[in-house]
Amino acid sequence: MIVVSGFIRVRPEKMDELRPYMRAALEGTRQEPGCLMYAYGEDVLDPGLIRIVERWDNWAAIDAHTTKPHIKAWADAREAAGGTLERHILAHEVTGEGRAL
Amino acid sequence: MIVVSGFIRVRPEKMDELRPYMRAALEGTRQEPGCLMYAYGEDVLDPGLIRIVERWDNWAAIDAHTTKPHIKAWADAREAAGGTLERHILAHEVTGEGRAL
Repeated sequence: MIVVSGFIRVRPEKMDELRPYMRAALEGTRQEPGCLMYAYGEDVLDPGLIRIVERWDNWAAIDAHTTKPHIKAWADAREAAGGTLERHILAHEVTGEGRAL
Repeated sequence: MIVVSGFIRVRPEKMDELRPYMRAALEGTRQEPGCLMYAYGEDVLDPGLIRIVERWDNWAAIDAHTTKPHIKAWADAREAAGGTLERHILAHEVTGEGRAL
C-alpha cells in the first residue's frame, strides 16, 4: 500500500469558491481503481491550508490519478483563485497492516 | 520514519468549543521529541470529521505522545462534547525519503 500525506495552501478567502472543485476531485478520485482513502481537511488552526491524506493500492493507480480530468479541473480552479501558495506532498510505500492508534 | 493517517469524528456543532483543545494538542505535540509533522484538518465536505496526518521519527516517540497531558485534555474535551463518534488511525513505518507528488 502507498500512504500519501502532506498539504497544499490556497487563499483562505477562496475556500468556498474552491469547494465544488474539491468535491468533484474527492468524489471522482474515490471511484478510481486502487484508491483506498482520499481526503482533504482544512487545517483547524490555519485556514486555507488543506491537509491531504491518501491511501492507494499501488503506484500505477497514483500515476493514473494525476491525469484525471477532475484533478486537472481542481488544479485549474486553484490557479484561477490565486494559485497554490505552498505544496508539500509525499508518498511512502508501506508493508503490513500498520498499527492502529 | 512513521507516517500516521486517519480520522476521528466529533459532533460538528462542537468544533468551535473543541478548537482550543485541538490548538493545545497540536502546539504541544509539535514540541515533542521525534514529532516531524502533526496536523488536524476538518474534512472539506464533512463537518466534524477531523482528518489526521502525522510523521514521527520512531515508535517510542509515538508511545510517549499518547501519555501527554495535552492529549489527555483533548480526549477528555471530546468526551465532554458528546464523544468520539468514529475513530480510525493507522501508523505505518516507512523507509526512504518517499516520492514527492
